[in-house]
Amino acid sequence: MDDAAKDLGRCAVVLPAGGCGERLGSLTPKQFCTVLGRPLISHTLEAFERASWIKDIIVVVASESLDLMKAIIHKYGHQRVTLVKGGETRHRSIFNGLKVFSENHSDDTAIDKPEVVIIHDAVRPFVDEDFLLQVAKSAKQHGAAGAIRPLVSTVIASSSDGFLDYSLERARHRASEMPQAFQYDVIYRAYLQCTDYDLDFGTECLHLALQYSNVKAKLLEGPPDLWKVTYKRDLYAAESVIKESISQQLCIVTNVKKEAIEVGFLLHENLKLHYKQVKAVSSSMCKTIHHLQNIFHGQCCNFICINVKDLDFEETQNLVDLLQTTNASISYPLVIVSVHLTTEDSSSGNKLSGVRKLAKEAHKSNILVYGLLINIDQDKVQLQQTVCEGTAIITALIKDRNPALVGQLMVA
Amino acid sequence: MDDAAKDLGRCAVVLPAGGCGERLGSLTPKQFCTVLGRPLISHTLEAFERASWIKDIIVVVASESLDLMKAIIHKYGHQRVTLVKGGETRHRSIFNGLKVFSENHSDDTAIDKPEVVIIHDAVRPFVDEDFLLQVAKSAKQHGAAGAIRPLVSTVIASSSDGFLDYSLERARHRASEMPQAFQYDVIYRAYLQCTDYDLDFGTECLHLALQYSNVKAKLLEGPPDLWKVTYKRDLYAAESVIKESISQQLCIVTNVKKEAIEVGFLLHENLKLHYKQVKAVSSSMCKTIHHLQNIFHGQCCNFICINVKDLDFEETQNLVDLLQTTNASISYPLVIVSVHLTTEDSSSGNKLSGVRKLAKEAHKSNILVYGLLINIDQDKVQLQQTVCEGTAIITALIKDRNPALVGQLMVA
Repeated sequence: MDDAAKDLGRCAVVLPAGGCGERLGSLTPKQFCTVLGRPLISHTLEAFERASWIKDIIVVVASESLDLMKAIIHKYGHQRVTLVKGGETRHRSIFNGLKVFSENHSDDTAIDKPEVVIIHDAVRPFVDEDFLLQVAKSAKQHGAAGAIRPLVSTVIASSSDGFLDYSLERARHRASEMPQAFQYDVIYRAYLQCTDYDLDFGTECLHLALQYSNVKAKLLEGPPDLWKVTYKRDLYAAESVIKESISQQLCIVTNVKKEAIEVGFLLHENLKLHYKQVKAVSSSMCKTIHHLQNIFHGQCCNFICINVKDLDFEETQNLVDLLQTTNASISYPLVIVSVHLTTEDSSSGNKLSGVRKLAKEAHKSNILVYGLLINIDQDKVQLQQTVCEGTAIITALIKDRNPALVGQLMVA
Repeated sequence: MDDAAKDLGRCAVVLPAGGCGERLGSLTPKQFCTVLGRPLISHTLEAFERASWIKDIIVVVASESLDLMKAIIHKYGHQRVTLVKGGETRHRSIFNGLKVFSENHSDDTAIDKPEVVIIHDAVRPFVDEDFLLQVAKSAKQHGAAGAIRPLVSTVIASSSDGFLDYSLERARHRASEMPQAFQYDVIYRAYLQCTDYDLDFGTECLHLALQYSNVKAKLLEGPPDLWKVTYKRDLYAAESVIKESISQQLCIVTNVKKEAIEVGFLLHENLKLHYKQVKAVSSSMCKTIHHLQNIFHGQCCNFICINVKDLDFEETQNLVDLLQTTNASISYPLVIVSVHLTTEDSSSGNKLSGVRKLAKEAHKSNILVYGLLINIDQDKVQLQQTVCEGTAIITALIKDRNPALVGQLMVA
């Protein structure tokens, strides 16, 4: 991707995050609401960090949120971020963000002026690198570019007494979304020239570029995922979208004992129907995190660990220990389903206390451990049926990532 | 509410449900996608059935969906519904719906012409009766009325070569949403006069009323819940909204034995913090559905059933039997958490087989039974802590309504 971005010149992003979230009906501004335990803005920052060609990320926050934002950056290890104090309105905040590249700083924090600056929202976490690059390149070429989407509802104007004045033809209009990108000089010049009325009541950066820098923005049809988290239902949707996206890949850790291999194989066959990628790895091969990280391209958040001996948590414990040495669970809760092969179900009480203790410890590191008993003392047909039920349970546990159920022992 | 609607005259609704759902990225049209196991359109129909002053519900569906729609109406027992075959476009479908009140039918299906007709979308399930009445009354008074919402994004127009032409001032425009309502003659006359271009490319009924019946619609600010399920994320959001709305009330069924009362009281105290309404009812009082139905105003979807003897499922079995005699679980999956008070945890294996069998049977009637063991052989402080953990598990089970975990025995 860096190759694809090489003609772009220096690129930065300004992320206004000063909104108060009144439409959400919550006291917490929406950019700080947590989704899967992590503030929304951290998810958005992650999207920009994946694009290594974006050199600086300017986050503009209200002064009362500065400490909170610093804590978020520290906790999730965000890189390349500079914090700037916001203004009274969105436009004033963006303007403050743009100023860090142009004004002289008394300290050493001067930041190199970018050729292209992307403007995005803190509450649009699902922007992908391809589309960012497309918008940035288009801005470099045309001076300005922005994402658009078809209108979901017809837009109308009302008279002052609350009656229909006129309605717009839906097909001729578009919703202006984010990201937008600009040649830095184009947008900075526009902000320098615009009026207080623009700064206080305007909503559209593309409009400023047109009016004050005489640049017509190129409009690019964006994917539906660009939507802005505005209402409480959007937080629900965002959580479901993230849960789905981190539940695509599954790693089955198993040892070479006969019964483990057999159940592992059956599970593999069944789970393949529910996940984009399922890979099995021998537990003996799974001693270093390096190996584990190379199983998939990208991070794997879901593990099945097959333990053979009746009271044995060794495999699961090893995996927890290994995952704890990494930062993997900082971003997302990891799920380990600790599968136990049994020949009788009366010993579940003893097993339980082991899983619970292990799960309680692991939970502190954002690793969610659930137990699953599979009785292997059955004929082939019965075992097939049991594994099928176990697959449904595993899939449900991974999809929900429910912290209240860690340490519970399910029975397939 | 019928009193409030008495000056309205006869009222009907037309519900176009012919869309193909292309924006959802799914082969199933979105109105037939299931949310909590039930097609979205059935949730929307329920919202209209609650308003008893709406006499006729005209559902307009594509001819290929007629049989599916009939099956849905039958399965969920929808009343007052008339099915009409849709047209090629939304406007043509609405027109077809309106015609049933005006054209002579060869059979006996002629339907009384309403004074006011509401037009809504099959994919906006969260409309409440108060707002419907408000829109209908406003239409009766002014000839036409419609819901509006503030714009979430700025609206722009693009030139033919894909560049920004102009952007609209966001504060001066609104998104036109549903429901809308009209004096029947106003909207029918408009449809009779409008052009093929209107019918094929138009999107706004309020516009037709203005242009062809010279009626300016009154615009009413609607609640955010009116949004249209358009994308896959909207299905996620709809599911979460419904799950939340049916997880507000909780009924604790307990018998009069000392330990049951004690744990029941502790649970009650803890659960009150998580639910709008928690009521305890003695199991002896809970023998007829009449009593159970009168516990809350409206339907209760969540039950905790406290069983005292070690291997006893009697209370839970009674409750399942009772709920099965009603239609309660047709609309939504009901949750029963079967709480078992124990003095040792080694017997859980035996208990398990009982819960699983019971849960498997109950699941066939859309009743989700989960087991929860609470060890009461502890001192007061420990018990308090255990009940607290049990509360977290109960709350998670009720919130998720996960069918894959029915019959599992959790341990608090």
